Amino acid sequence: MIGDPPGSLTSVASSFRERLERLAAERRSVLCVGLDPRPKLFPDEVFRGVRAGPAGLARALERFCTGIVDAVAEHAVAVKPQLAFFEQAGHHGLAAAERVCDHARERGLLVVADGKRGDIGSTAEAYAAAYLAPRGGAPPLADALTVNPYLGGDSLQPFADACKASGGLMFVLVRTSNPGGADLQELELADGSRVWERVADLVAGLAPVAGAVVGATQPGAVARARELMPEATFLLPGIGAQGGEIAALGPAFAPGPAGGLVSASRSVLYASREPGRWQAAAATEAARLQAAAWAVVEGA
Amino acid sequence: MIGDPPGSLTSVASSFRERLERLAAERRSVLCVGLDPRPKLFPDEVFRGVRAGPAGLARALERFCTGIVDAVAEHAVAVKPQLAFFEQAGHHGLAAAERVCDHARERGLLVVADGKRGDIGSTAEAYAAAYLAPRGGAPPLADALTVNPYLGGDSLQPFADACKASGGLMFVLVRTSNPGGADLQELELADGSRVWERVADLVAGLAPVAGAVVGATQPGAVARARELMPEATFLLPGIGAQGGEIAALGPAFAPGPAGGLVSASRSVLYASREPGRWQAAAATEAARLQAAAWAVVEGA
Repeated sequence: MIGDPPGSLTSVASSFRERLERLAAERRSVLCVGLDPRPKLFPDEVFRGVRAGPAGLARALERFCTGIVDAVAEHAVAVKPQLAFFEQAGHHGLAAAERVCDHARERGLLVVADGKRGDIGSTAEAYAAAYLAPRGGAPPLADALTVNPYLGGDSLQPFADACKASGGLMFVLVRTSNPGGADLQELELADGSRVWERVADLVAGLAPVAGAVVGATQPGAVARARELMPEATFLLPGIGAQGGEIAALGPAFAPGPAGGLVSASRSVLYASREPGRWQAAAATEAARLQAAAWAVVEGA
Repeated sequence: MIGDPPGSLTSVASSFRERLERLAAERRSVLCVGLDPRPKLFPDEVFRGVRAGPAGLARALERFCTGIVDAVAEHAVAVKPQLAFFEQAGHHGLAAAERVCDHARERGLLVVADGKRGDIGSTAEAYAAAYLAPRGGAPPLADALTVNPYLGGDSLQPFADACKASGGLMFVLVRTSNPGGADLQELELADGSRVWERVADLVAGLAPVAGAVVGATQPGAVARARELMPEATFLLPGIGAQGGEIAALGPAFAPGPAGGLVSASRSVLYASREPGRWQAAAATEAARLQAAAWAVVEGA
Protein backbone atom coordinates (compact mmCIF):
# COMPACT_ATOMS: atom_id res chain seq x y z
CA MET A 1 0.00 0.00 0.00
CA ILE A 2 1.49 3.36 -0.99
CA GLY A 3 2.64 5.30 2.06
CA ASP A 4 2.28 2.50 4.56
CA PRO A 5 5.46 1.77 6.48
CA PRO A 6 6.99 -1.49 5.21
CA GLY A 7 6.02 -4.45 7.34
CA SER A 8 3.21 -2.58 9.05
CA LEU A 9 0.76 -5.44 9.00
CA THR A 10 -1.66 -3.86 11.42
CA SER A 11 -1.97 -0.52 9.63
CA VAL A 12 -5.44 0.34 8.41
CA ALA A 13 -5.54 0.89 4.65
CA SER A 14 -5.75 4.53 3.68
CA SER A 15 -8.93 5.57 1.90
CA PHE A 16 -9.13 6.07 -1.86
CA ARG A 17 -9.69 9.75 -1.26
CA GLU A 18 -6.58 10.07 0.89
CA ARG A 19 -4.47 8.30 -1.72
CA LEU A 20 -5.91 10.47 -4.50
CA GLU A 21 -5.31 13.68 -2.51
CA ARG A 22 -1.69 12.77 -1.90
CA LEU A 23 -1.00 11.76 -5.51
CA ALA A 24 -2.77 14.79 -6.96
CA ALA A 25 -0.73 17.18 -4.83
CA GLU A 26 2.54 15.36 -5.60
CA ARG A 27 2.03 15.26 -9.36
CA ARG A 28 -0.20 18.31 -9.87
CA SER A 29 -2.53 16.02 -11.75
CA VAL A 30 -6.12 14.75 -11.64
CA LEU A 31 -5.76 12.89 -14.93
CA CYS A 32 -7.10 9.35 -15.34
CA VAL A 33 -6.20 7.56 -18.56
CA GLY A 34 -8.88 5.16 -19.72
CA LEU A 35 -7.36 1.92 -21.02
CA ASP A 36 -9.83 1.02 -23.78
CA PRO A 37 -7.64 -1.23 -25.91
CA ARG A 38 -9.18 -1.47 -29.39
CA PRO A 39 -6.94 -3.81 -31.41
CA LYS A 40 -7.96 -2.22 -34.73
CA LEU A 41 -6.32 1.00 -33.59
CA PHE A 42 -3.06 -0.51 -32.29
CA PRO A 43 0.25 0.32 -33.95
CA ASP A 44 1.49 -2.65 -35.97
CA GLU A 45 4.46 -3.29 -33.70
CA VAL A 46 2.15 -4.36 -30.86
CA PHE A 47 1.27 -7.46 -32.89
CA ARG A 48 4.85 -8.46 -33.62
CA GLY A 49 5.23 -12.22 -33.01
CA VAL A 50 1.62 -12.52 -31.83
CA ARG A 51 -0.40 -15.49 -33.03
CA ALA A 52 -4.11 -15.48 -33.89
CA GLY A 53 -6.61 -16.50 -31.22
CA PRO A 54 -7.54 -15.34 -27.72
CA ALA A 55 -4.11 -15.94 -26.17
CA GLY A 56 -2.44 -13.85 -28.85
CA LEU A 57 -5.08 -11.13 -28.58
CA ALA A 58 -4.52 -11.03 -24.82
CA ARG A 59 -0.78 -10.66 -25.36
CA ALA A 60 -1.34 -7.69 -27.68
CA LEU A 61 -3.77 -6.08 -25.20
CA GLU A 62 -1.25 -6.41 -22.40
CA ARG A 63 1.65 -5.13 -24.50
CA PHE A 64 -0.29 -2.08 -25.64
CA CYS A 65 -1.70 -1.24 -22.21
CA THR A 66 1.57 -1.61 -20.32
CA GLY A 67 3.17 0.55 -22.99
CA ILE A 68 0.54 3.23 -22.39
CA VAL A 69 0.90 2.93 -18.60
CA ASP A 70 4.64 3.51 -18.90
CA ALA A 71 4.08 6.46 -21.22
CA VAL A 72 1.56 8.28 -19.02
CA ALA A 73 2.68 7.29 -15.50
CA GLU A 74 4.30 10.61 -14.66
CA HIS A 75 1.36 12.67 -15.93
CA ALA A 76 -1.62 10.75 -14.56
CA VAL A 77 -2.78 9.72 -11.10
CA ALA A 78 -4.94 6.82 -12.26
CA VAL A 79 -5.67 4.44 -15.10
CA LYS A 80 -9.06 2.97 -15.86
CA PRO A 81 -8.88 -0.43 -17.59
CA GLN A 82 -12.12 -1.13 -19.44
CA LEU A 83 -12.78 -4.78 -18.61
CA ALA A 84 -14.95 -5.44 -21.68
CA PHE A 85 -11.97 -5.32 -24.02
CA PHE A 86 -10.08 -7.85 -21.91
CA GLU A 87 -13.11 -10.15 -21.54
CA GLN A 88 -13.22 -10.27 -25.32
CA ALA A 89 -10.13 -12.48 -25.10
CA GLY A 90 -11.77 -14.73 -22.50
CA HIS A 91 -9.76 -15.92 -19.53
CA HIS A 92 -6.53 -15.07 -21.36
CA GLY A 93 -7.78 -11.49 -21.48
CA LEU A 94 -8.65 -11.39 -17.79
CA ALA A 95 -5.14 -12.65 -16.97
CA ALA A 96 -3.77 -9.80 -19.10
CA ALA A 97 -6.00 -7.33 -17.24
CA GLU A 98 -4.65 -8.61 -13.93
CA ARG A 99 -1.08 -8.05 -15.08
CA VAL A 100 -1.88 -4.59 -16.44
CA CYS A 101 -3.47 -3.61 -13.09
CA ASP A 102 -0.45 -4.88 -11.17
CA HIS A 103 1.90 -3.04 -13.51
CA ALA A 104 -0.02 0.22 -13.09
CA ARG A 105 0.10 -0.10 -9.31
CA GLU A 106 3.87 -0.71 -9.47
CA ARG A 107 4.14 2.51 -11.46
CA GLY A 108 2.38 4.36 -8.64
CA LEU A 109 -1.00 4.76 -10.30
CA LEU A 110 -4.44 4.22 -8.83
CA VAL A 111 -6.45 1.57 -10.69
CA VAL A 112 -10.13 2.12 -11.49
CA ALA A 113 -11.57 -1.12 -12.88
CA ASP A 114 -14.25 -0.04 -15.33
CA GLY A 115 -16.62 -3.01 -15.23
CA LYS A 116 -19.95 -1.31 -14.49
CA ARG A 117 -20.86 -4.28 -12.35
CA GLY A 118 -24.07 -4.53 -10.37
CA ASP A 119 -26.12 -7.32 -8.85
CA ILE A 120 -27.96 -8.28 -5.70
CA GLY A 121 -26.99 -9.74 -2.33
CA SER A 122 -24.28 -12.34 -2.32
CA THR A 123 -23.67 -11.83 -6.05
CA ALA A 124 -22.75 -8.21 -5.44
CA GLU A 125 -20.52 -9.44 -2.61
CA ALA A 126 -18.76 -11.71 -5.10
CA TYR A 127 -18.13 -8.85 -7.53
CA ALA A 128 -16.85 -6.68 -4.69
CA ALA A 129 -14.56 -9.50 -3.55
CA ALA A 130 -13.31 -10.03 -7.11
CA TYR A 131 -12.21 -6.44 -7.66
CA LEU A 132 -11.95 -4.63 -4.32
CA ALA A 133 -10.79 -7.18 -1.73
CA PRO A 134 -7.20 -8.25 -1.06
CA ARG A 135 -6.28 -11.38 -3.06
CA GLY A 136 -4.63 -13.63 -0.52
CA GLY A 137 -1.39 -11.84 0.28
CA ALA A 138 -1.70 -9.52 -2.73
CA PRO A 139 -3.45 -6.14 -2.79
CA PRO A 140 -6.91 -5.80 -4.36
CA LEU A 141 -7.00 -5.92 -8.16
CA ALA A 142 -8.25 -2.35 -8.20
CA ASP A 143 -8.52 0.72 -5.99
CA ALA A 144 -11.98 1.47 -7.36
CA LEU A 145 -14.70 -0.17 -9.44
CA THR A 146 -17.47 1.38 -11.54
CA VAL A 147 -20.90 0.16 -10.44
CA ASN A 148 -24.37 0.32 -12.04
CA PRO A 149 -27.20 1.44 -9.71
CA TYR A 150 -30.28 0.12 -11.58
CA LEU A 151 -30.85 -2.62 -9.00
CA GLY A 152 -31.16 -0.09 -6.18
CA GLY A 153 -29.70 0.66 -2.78
CA ASP A 154 -29.43 -2.89 -1.47
CA SER A 155 -27.34 -3.78 -4.53
CA LEU A 156 -24.84 -1.01 -3.70
CA GLN A 157 -24.42 -1.88 -0.02
CA PRO A 158 -22.11 -4.92 -0.49
CA PHE A 159 -19.75 -2.76 -2.58
CA ALA A 160 -19.83 -0.08 0.14
CA ASP A 161 -19.00 -2.67 2.79
CA ALA A 162 -16.06 -3.99 0.76
CA CYS A 163 -14.77 -0.45 0.20
CA LYS A 164 -14.92 0.31 3.91
CA ALA A 165 -12.87 -2.80 4.64
CA SER A 166 -10.22 -2.32 1.94
CA GLY A 167 -9.99 1.46 1.49
CA GLY A 168 -11.52 1.19 -1.98
CA LEU A 169 -14.13 3.28 -3.76
CA MET A 170 -17.10 2.52 -5.98
CA PHE A 171 -17.88 4.96 -8.75
CA VAL A 172 -21.65 4.71 -9.22
CA LEU A 173 -23.00 5.54 -12.68
CA VAL A 174 -25.07 8.68 -12.13
CA ARG A 175 -25.23 10.71 -15.36
CA THR A 176 -23.36 9.11 -18.24
CA SER A 177 -21.64 10.76 -21.18
CA ASN A 178 -23.45 9.02 -24.05
CA PRO A 179 -26.44 10.55 -25.91
CA GLY A 180 -28.71 7.64 -24.88
CA GLY A 181 -27.82 8.26 -21.25
CA ALA A 182 -30.79 10.63 -21.19
CA ASP A 183 -33.27 7.83 -22.02
CA LEU A 184 -33.64 6.76 -18.40
CA GLN A 185 -31.42 9.08 -16.43
CA GLU A 186 -33.21 12.28 -17.49
CA LEU A 187 -36.78 10.99 -17.14
CA GLU A 188 -38.81 13.52 -15.17
CA LEU A 189 -40.33 12.21 -11.97
CA ALA A 190 -43.69 13.10 -10.50
CA ASP A 191 -41.98 15.53 -8.08
CA GLY A 192 -40.18 17.35 -10.90
CA SER A 193 -36.75 15.83 -10.24
CA ARG A 194 -34.83 13.51 -12.56
CA VAL A 195 -34.03 9.83 -12.19
CA TRP A 196 -30.29 10.52 -12.03
CA GLU A 197 -30.82 12.98 -9.19
CA ARG A 198 -32.31 10.17 -7.12
CA VAL A 199 -29.27 8.07 -7.88
CA ALA A 200 -27.16 11.01 -6.72
CA ASP A 201 -29.09 10.95 -3.42
CA LEU A 202 -28.26 7.25 -3.01
CA VAL A 203 -24.58 8.01 -3.63
CA ALA A 204 -24.55 10.92 -1.18
CA GLY A 205 -25.96 8.56 1.44
CA LEU A 206 -23.08 6.14 0.93
CA ALA A 207 -20.27 8.71 1.24
CA PRO A 208 -17.35 8.51 1.71
CA VAL A 209 -17.00 5.14 -0.03
CA ALA A 210 -19.14 6.10 -3.05
CA GLY A 211 -18.06 8.34 -5.88
CA ALA A 212 -20.05 9.18 -8.99
CA VAL A 213 -19.62 8.85 -12.73
CA VAL A 214 -20.76 12.14 -14.25
CA GLY A 215 -20.15 12.57 -17.95
CA ALA A 216 -17.96 15.54 -18.85
CA THR A 217 -20.21 15.99 -21.87
CA GLN A 218 -22.97 17.28 -19.53
CA PRO A 219 -21.59 20.51 -17.98
CA GLY A 220 -24.95 21.47 -16.44
CA ALA A 221 -25.16 18.09 -14.81
CA VAL A 222 -21.68 18.45 -13.27
CA ALA A 223 -22.70 21.56 -11.33
CA ARG A 224 -26.02 20.06 -10.23
CA ALA A 225 -24.31 16.79 -9.28
CA ARG A 226 -21.91 18.72 -7.04
CA GLU A 227 -24.88 20.32 -5.25
CA LEU A 228 -26.43 16.90 -4.63
CA MET A 229 -23.16 15.14 -3.71
CA PRO A 230 -21.05 17.82 -1.99
CA GLU A 231 -18.12 15.56 -1.08
CA ALA A 232 -18.14 12.67 -3.56
CA THR A 233 -15.22 12.08 -5.89
CA PHE A 234 -16.42 12.32 -9.48
CA LEU A 235 -15.15 10.24 -12.37
CA LEU A 236 -15.50 12.52 -15.36
CA PRO A 237 -15.27 10.66 -18.68
CA GLY A 238 -16.03 12.05 -22.10
CA ILE A 239 -13.14 14.49 -22.54
CA GLY A 240 -11.70 14.69 -26.03
CA ALA A 241 -13.15 12.26 -28.56
CA GLN A 242 -16.62 12.44 -26.97
CA GLY A 243 -16.62 16.24 -27.02
CA GLY A 244 -16.45 17.13 -23.33
CA GLU A 245 -14.47 20.27 -22.44
CA ILE A 246 -12.15 20.34 -19.47
CA ALA A 247 -12.73 24.04 -18.87
CA ALA A 248 -16.38 23.37 -17.95
CA LEU A 249 -15.51 20.98 -15.10
CA GLY A 250 -14.79 23.58 -12.42
CA PRO A 251 -17.75 22.67 -10.16
CA ALA A 252 -16.44 19.13 -9.81
CA PHE A 253 -13.34 20.47 -8.03
CA ALA A 254 -15.09 22.69 -5.50
CA PRO A 255 -14.05 20.30 -2.66
CA GLY A 256 -10.43 20.32 -3.87
CA PRO A 257 -8.22 18.18 -6.12
CA ALA A 258 -9.80 14.96 -4.81
CA GLY A 259 -13.14 16.17 -6.14
CA GLY A 260 -12.64 14.39 -9.41
CA LEU A 261 -10.70 12.38 -11.94
CA VAL A 262 -10.70 13.78 -15.45
CA SER A 263 -10.75 10.72 -17.68
CA ALA A 264 -9.60 10.57 -21.28
CA SER A 265 -9.09 7.48 -23.41
CA ARG A 266 -8.99 7.60 -27.18
CA SER A 267 -7.23 10.97 -27.53
CA VAL A 268 -4.31 9.66 -25.43
CA LEU A 269 -4.17 6.00 -26.48
CA TYR A 270 -4.39 6.60 -30.20
CA ALA A 271 -2.56 9.92 -30.45
CA SER A 272 -0.26 8.31 -33.02
CA ARG A 273 0.17 4.93 -34.71
CA GLU A 274 3.52 5.87 -36.15
CA PRO A 275 6.10 3.12 -35.54
CA GLY A 276 8.19 3.89 -32.48
CA ARG A 277 6.21 7.09 -31.81
CA TRP A 278 2.92 5.98 -30.23
CA GLN A 279 4.16 6.04 -26.63
CA ALA A 280 5.76 9.46 -26.96
CA ALA A 281 2.59 10.81 -28.58
CA ALA A 282 0.47 9.39 -25.76
CA ALA A 283 2.78 11.01 -23.21
CA THR A 284 2.55 14.37 -24.96
CA GLU A 285 -1.23 14.30 -25.04
CA ALA A 286 -1.36 13.15 -21.39
CA ALA A 287 0.89 16.04 -20.39
CA ARG A 288 -1.36 18.48 -22.24
CA LEU A 289 -4.49 17.15 -20.52
CA GLN A 290 -2.72 17.06 -17.16
CA ALA A 291 -1.93 20.77 -17.41
CA ALA A 292 -5.38 21.72 -18.71
CA ALA A 293 -7.16 19.80 -15.93
CA TRP A 294 -4.85 21.12 -13.21
CA ALA A 295 -5.57 24.69 -14.33
CA VAL A 296 -9.26 23.96 -13.73
CA VAL A 297 -8.52 22.51 -10.28
CA GLU A 298 -6.52 25.59 -9.31
CA GLY A 299 -9.22 27.92 -10.61
CA ALA A 300 -12.10 26.08 -8.87
CA MET B 1 -25.65 -25.65 -33.34
CA ILE B 2 -28.48 -27.85 -32.13
CA GLY B 3 -30.71 -28.89 -34.99
CA ASP B 4 -28.47 -27.73 -37.78
CA PRO B 5 -27.59 -30.47 -40.27
CA PRO B 6 -24.00 -31.56 -39.70
CA GLY B 7 -21.56 -29.78 -41.96
CA SER B 8 -24.06 -27.16 -43.00
CA LEU B 9 -21.64 -24.27 -42.99
CA THR B 10 -23.95 -21.88 -44.74
CA SER B 11 -26.98 -22.39 -42.51
CA VAL B 12 -28.19 -19.34 -40.63
CA ALA B 13 -28.18 -19.83 -36.84
CA SER B 14 -31.62 -20.46 -35.41
CA SER B 15 -32.90 -17.81 -33.04
CA PHE B 16 -32.81 -18.20 -29.26
CA ARG B 17 -36.60 -18.30 -29.27
CA GLU B 18 -36.70 -21.11 -31.84
CA ARG B 19 -34.21 -23.15 -29.84
CA LEU B 20 -36.13 -22.55 -26.62
CA GLU B 21 -39.45 -23.51 -28.23
CA ARG B 22 -38.03 -26.76 -29.52
CA LEU B 23 -36.35 -27.70 -26.24
CA ALA B 24 -39.39 -26.77 -24.14
CA ALA B 25 -41.67 -28.95 -26.23
CA GLU B 26 -39.22 -31.87 -26.24
CA ARG B 27 -38.62 -31.82 -22.48
CA ARG B 28 -41.87 -30.32 -21.25
CA SER B 29 -39.77 -27.85 -19.33
CA VAL B 30 -39.18 -24.12 -19.03
CA LEU B 31 -36.78 -24.51 -16.11
CA CYS B 32 -33.52 -22.57 -15.96
CA VAL B 33 -31.12 -23.51 -13.20
CA GLY B 34 -29.07 -20.58 -11.94
CA LEU B 35 -25.45 -21.58 -11.34
CA ASP B 36 -24.57 -19.36 -8.36
CA PRO B 37 -21.66 -21.34 -6.92
CA ARG B 38 -21.14 -20.22 -3.32
CA PRO B 39 -18.16 -22.21 -2.00
CA LYS B 40 -19.34 -21.97 1.61
CA LEU B 41 -22.37 -24.07 0.69
CA PHE B 42 -20.53 -26.75 -1.31
CA PRO B 43 -20.49 -30.35 -0.10
CA ASP B 44 -17.06 -31.23 1.29
CA GLU B 45 -16.28 -33.69 -1.48
CA VAL B 46 -16.09 -30.87 -4.02
CA PHE B 47 -12.93 -29.65 -2.32
CA ARG B 48 -11.19 -33.03 -2.29
CA GLY B 49 -7.58 -32.57 -3.43
CA VAL B 50 -8.12 -28.86 -4.08
CA ARG B 51 -5.42 -26.44 -2.95
CA ALA B 52 -5.94 -22.96 -1.51
CA GLY B 53 -5.81 -19.98 -3.86
CA PRO B 54 -7.65 -18.86 -7.00
CA ALA B 55 -6.70 -21.88 -9.14
CA GLY B 56 -8.03 -24.27 -6.51
CA LEU B 57 -11.17 -22.21 -6.00
CA ALA B 58 -11.77 -22.28 -9.76
CA ARG B 59 -11.37 -26.04 -9.78
CA ALA B 60 -14.00 -26.39 -7.04
CA LEU B 61 -16.37 -24.04 -8.86
CA GLU B 62 -16.04 -26.08 -12.05
CA ARG B 63 -16.45 -29.40 -10.28
CA PHE B 64 -19.59 -28.28 -8.46
CA CYS B 65 -21.19 -26.62 -11.48
CA THR B 66 -20.54 -29.47 -13.91
CA GLY B 67 -21.96 -31.82 -11.26
CA ILE B 68 -25.11 -29.71 -11.09
CA VAL B 69 -25.35 -29.51 -14.88
CA ASP B 70 -25.19 -33.29 -15.12
CA ALA B 71 -27.82 -33.64 -12.38
CA VAL B 72 -30.37 -31.26 -13.89
CA ALA B 73 -29.76 -31.71 -17.63
CA GLU B 74 -32.85 -33.82 -18.29
CA HIS B 75 -35.16 -31.53 -16.30
CA ALA B 76 -34.02 -28.07 -17.41
CA VAL B 77 -33.79 -26.28 -20.75
CA ALA B 78 -31.18 -23.77 -19.65
CA VAL B 79 -28.55 -22.96 -17.07
CA LYS B 80 -27.59 -19.47 -15.98
CA PRO B 81 -23.99 -19.21 -14.76
CA GLN B 82 -23.57 -16.16 -12.54
CA LEU B 83 -20.29 -14.68 -13.70
CA ALA B 84 -19.54 -12.85 -10.44
CA PHE B 85 -18.76 -16.08 -8.61
CA PHE B 86 -16.32 -17.11 -11.31
CA GLU B 87 -14.68 -13.68 -11.49
CA GLN B 88 -13.97 -14.04 -7.79
CA ALA B 89 -11.31 -16.59 -8.80
CA GLY B 90 -9.83 -14.18 -11.38
CA HIS B 91 -8.77 -15.52 -14.77
CA HIS B 92 -8.74 -19.07 -13.37
CA GLY B 93 -12.42 -18.58 -12.58
CA LEU B 94 -13.26 -17.28 -16.03
CA ALA B 95 -11.55 -20.33 -17.56
CA ALA B 96 -13.74 -22.50 -15.32
CA ALA B 97 -16.84 -20.59 -16.46
CA GLU B 98 -15.87 -21.21 -20.09
CA ARG B 99 -15.58 -24.94 -19.45
CA VAL B 100 -18.90 -25.02 -17.54
CA CYS B 101 -20.64 -23.24 -20.43
CA ASP B 102 -19.17 -25.66 -22.96
CA HIS B 103 -20.19 -28.61 -20.81
CA ALA B 104 -23.77 -27.35 -20.49
CA ARG B 105 -24.02 -26.90 -24.24
CA GLU B 106 -22.74 -30.45 -24.78
CA ARG B 107 -25.49 -31.64 -22.44
CA GLY B 108 -28.09 -29.94 -24.68
CA LEU B 109 -28.78 -26.94 -22.47
CA LEU B 110 -29.09 -23.30 -23.42
CA VAL B 111 -26.59 -21.06 -21.63
CA VAL B 112 -27.65 -17.71 -20.20
CA ALA B 113 -24.54 -15.83 -19.03
CA ASP B 114 -25.67 -13.76 -16.06
CA GLY B 115 -23.25 -10.88 -16.16
CA LYS B 116 -25.60 -7.87 -16.14
CA ARG B 117 -23.20 -6.12 -18.48
CA GLY B 118 -23.85 -2.70 -19.95
CA ASP B 119 -21.74 0.04 -21.47
CA ILE B 120 -21.62 2.43 -24.37
CA GLY B 121 -20.58 2.24 -28.01
CA SER B 122 -17.57 0.14 -28.81
CA THR B 123 -17.35 -1.07 -25.20
CA ALA B 124 -20.82 -2.60 -25.45
CA GLU B 125 -19.67 -4.15 -28.74
CA ALA B 126 -16.75 -5.72 -26.89
CA TYR B 127 -19.03 -7.22 -24.22
CA ALA B 128 -21.36 -8.53 -26.91
CA ALA B 129 -18.42 -10.05 -28.77
CA ALA B 130 -17.11 -11.63 -25.57
CA TYR B 131 -20.31 -13.48 -24.73
CA LEU B 132 -22.55 -13.65 -27.81
CA ALA B 133 -20.28 -13.94 -30.85
CA PRO B 134 -18.69 -17.12 -32.22
CA ARG B 135 -15.18 -17.66 -30.81
CA GLY B 136 -13.11 -18.48 -33.86
CA GLY B 137 -14.39 -21.88 -34.91
CA ALA B 138 -16.25 -22.43 -31.63
CA PRO B 139 -19.84 -21.42 -30.85
CA PRO B 140 -20.52 -18.33 -28.72
CA LEU B 141 -19.81 -18.71 -25.00
CA ALA B 142 -23.50 -18.20 -24.29
CA ASP B 143 -26.89 -18.25 -26.01
CA ALA B 144 -28.01 -15.23 -24.04
CA LEU B 145 -26.57 -12.53 -21.77
CA THR B 146 -28.23 -10.44 -19.08
CA VAL B 147 -27.82 -6.71 -19.77
CA ASN B 148 -28.33 -3.59 -17.64
CA PRO B 149 -30.29 -0.75 -19.30
CA TYR B 150 -29.27 2.25 -17.15
CA LEU B 151 -27.11 3.69 -19.95
CA GLY B 152 -30.07 3.86 -22.35
CA GLY B 153 -31.08 2.74 -25.78
CA ASP B 154 -27.80 3.35 -27.57
CA SER B 155 -26.08 1.09 -25.03
CA LEU B 156 -28.45 -1.78 -25.89
CA GLN B 157 -28.11 -1.53 -29.66
CA PRO B 158 -24.67 -3.23 -29.97
CA PHE B 159 -26.03 -6.22 -28.03
CA ALA B 160 -29.07 -6.31 -30.31
CA ASP B 161 -26.83 -6.26 -33.38
CA ALA B 162 -24.71 -9.12 -32.03
CA CYS B 163 -27.83 -11.14 -31.24
CA LYS B 164 -29.18 -10.67 -34.75
CA ALA B 165 -25.92 -11.95 -36.18
CA SER B 166 -25.50 -14.96 -33.91
CA GLY B 167 -29.04 -16.00 -33.01
CA GLY B 168 -28.52 -14.91 -29.41
CA LEU B 169 -30.71 -13.02 -26.99
CA MET B 170 -30.17 -10.29 -24.43
CA PHE B 171 -32.21 -10.38 -21.27
CA VAL B 172 -32.56 -6.74 -20.25
CA LEU B 173 -33.07 -6.02 -16.53
CA VAL B 174 -36.56 -4.56 -16.34
CA ARG B 175 -38.04 -5.23 -12.87
CA THR B 176 -35.71 -7.12 -10.57
CA SER B 177 -36.56 -9.51 -7.75
CA ASN B 178 -34.73 -7.78 -4.86
CA PRO B 179 -36.45 -5.41 -2.38
CA GLY B 180 -34.18 -2.51 -3.40
CA GLY B 181 -35.21 -3.01 -7.02
CA ALA B 182 -38.03 -0.59 -6.29
CA ASP B 183 -35.61 2.27 -5.45
CA LEU B 184 -35.22 3.31 -9.08
CA GLN B 185 -37.41 0.95 -11.05
CA GLU B 186 -40.68 1.93 -9.32
CA LEU B 187 -40.09 5.68 -9.27
CA GLU B 188 -43.23 7.40 -10.54
CA LEU B 189 -42.72 9.56 -13.60
CA ALA B 190 -44.41 12.85 -14.37
CA ASP B 191 -46.85 11.03 -16.69
CA GLY B 192 -47.85 8.53 -13.99
CA SER B 193 -45.89 5.59 -15.37
CA ARG B 194 -42.92 3.90 -13.71
CA VAL B 195 -39.27 3.89 -14.69
CA TRP B 196 -39.29 0.15 -15.35
CA GLU B 197 -42.24 0.54 -17.72
CA ARG B 198 -40.09 2.83 -19.89
CA VAL B 199 -37.39 0.20 -19.90
CA ALA B 200 -40.04 -2.28 -21.00
CA ASP B 201 -40.86 0.03 -23.91
CA LEU B 202 -37.18 0.02 -24.93
CA VAL B 203 -37.17 -3.79 -24.81
CA ALA B 204 -40.38 -4.08 -26.83
CA GLY B 205 -38.75 -1.89 -29.48
CA LEU B 206 -35.81 -4.29 -29.77
CA ALA B 207 -37.88 -7.46 -30.20
CA PRO B 208 -37.24 -10.21 -31.12
CA VAL B 209 -33.61 -10.11 -29.92
CA ALA B 210 -34.45 -8.62 -26.51
CA GLY B 211 -36.00 -10.50 -23.62
CA ALA B 212 -36.67 -9.12 -20.15
CA VAL B 213 -35.67 -9.98 -16.60
CA VAL B 214 -38.84 -9.73 -14.51
CA GLY B 215 -38.56 -10.89 -10.92
CA ALA B 216 -40.93 -13.72 -9.99
CA THR B 217 -41.26 -12.01 -6.61
CA GLN B 218 -43.36 -9.29 -8.30
CA PRO B 219 -46.49 -11.05 -9.62
CA GLY B 220 -48.28 -7.78 -10.44
CA ALA B 221 -45.28 -6.70 -12.46
CA VAL B 222 -45.27 -9.93 -14.47
CA ALA B 223 -48.78 -9.32 -15.80
CA ARG B 224 -48.08 -5.65 -16.55
CA ALA B 225 -44.76 -6.54 -18.17
CA ARG B 226 -46.54 -8.96 -20.49
CA GLU B 227 -48.91 -6.16 -21.57
CA LEU B 228 -45.97 -3.89 -22.38
CA MET B 229 -43.84 -6.60 -24.03
CA PRO B 230 -46.34 -8.95 -25.70
CA GLU B 231 -43.77 -11.22 -27.36
CA ALA B 232 -40.58 -10.96 -25.29
CA THR B 233 -39.13 -14.00 -23.56
CA PHE B 234 -39.01 -13.35 -19.83
CA LEU B 235 -36.30 -14.54 -17.48
CA LEU B 236 -38.10 -15.05 -14.18
CA PRO B 237 -35.71 -15.33 -11.22
CA GLY B 238 -36.67 -15.32 -7.56
CA ILE B 239 -38.45 -18.67 -7.28
CA GLY B 240 -37.83 -20.57 -4.06
CA ALA B 241 -35.31 -19.01 -1.68
CA GLN B 242 -36.34 -15.47 -2.66
CA GLY B 243 -40.04 -16.22 -2.10
CA GLY B 244 -41.48 -16.06 -5.62
CA GLU B 245 -44.29 -18.51 -6.41
CA ILE B 246 -44.41 -20.38 -9.69
CA ALA B 247 -48.21 -20.47 -9.73
CA ALA B 248 -48.34 -16.68 -10.11
CA LEU B 249 -46.33 -16.68 -13.35
CA GLY B 250 -49.16 -17.52 -15.74
CA PRO B 251 -49.17 -14.19 -17.59
CA ALA B 252 -45.55 -14.72 -18.61
CA PHE B 253 -46.59 -17.74 -20.67
CA ALA B 254 -49.45 -16.16 -22.57
CA PRO B 255 -47.39 -16.34 -25.82
CA GLY B 256 -46.60 -20.01 -25.20
CA PRO B 257 -43.75 -22.02 -23.66
CA ALA B 258 -41.11 -19.69 -25.11
CA GLY B 259 -42.67 -16.86 -23.13
CA GLY B 260 -40.35 -17.44 -20.23
CA LEU B 261 -37.66 -19.23 -18.35
CA VAL B 262 -38.45 -19.97 -14.70
CA SER B 263 -35.13 -19.61 -12.91
CA ALA B 264 -34.22 -21.18 -9.58
CA SER B 265 -30.78 -21.35 -7.99
CA ARG B 266 -30.28 -21.95 -4.30
CA SER B 267 -33.17 -24.37 -3.81
CA VAL B 268 -31.73 -26.67 -6.49
CA LEU B 269 -27.98 -26.20 -5.97
CA TYR B 270 -28.01 -26.61 -2.21
CA ALA B 271 -30.88 -29.08 -1.82
CA SER B 272 -28.49 -31.31 0.13
CA ARG B 273 -24.88 -31.28 1.26
CA GLU B 274 -24.96 -34.92 2.27
CA PRO B 275 -21.92 -36.80 0.91
CA GLY B 276 -22.79 -38.60 -2.30
CA ARG B 277 -26.35 -37.19 -2.26
CA TRP B 278 -26.11 -33.58 -3.44
CA GLN B 279 -26.52 -34.34 -7.14
CA ALA B 280 -29.50 -36.62 -6.62
CA ALA B 281 -31.13 -34.03 -4.35
CA ALA B 282 -30.58 -31.32 -6.96
CA ALA B 283 -32.13 -33.55 -9.62
CA THR B 284 -35.18 -34.22 -7.44
CA GLU B 285 -35.76 -30.53 -6.77
CA ALA B 286 -35.24 -29.70 -10.46
CA ALA B 287 -37.81 -32.34 -11.43
CA ARG B 288 -40.29 -30.87 -8.95
CA LEU B 289 -39.81 -27.34 -10.30
CA GLN B 290 -39.95 -28.60 -13.89
CA ALA B 291 -43.37 -30.12 -13.28
CA ALA B 292 -44.71 -27.14 -11.33
CA ALA B 293 -43.59 -24.67 -14.01
CA TRP B 294 -44.89 -26.81 -16.86
CA ALA B 295 -48.31 -26.95 -15.20
CA VAL B 296 -48.35 -23.16 -15.30
CA VAL B 297 -47.35 -23.16 -18.98
CA GLU B 298 -50.15 -25.55 -19.85
CA GLY B 299 -52.66 -23.57 -17.82
CA ALA B 300 -51.69 -20.20 -19.30
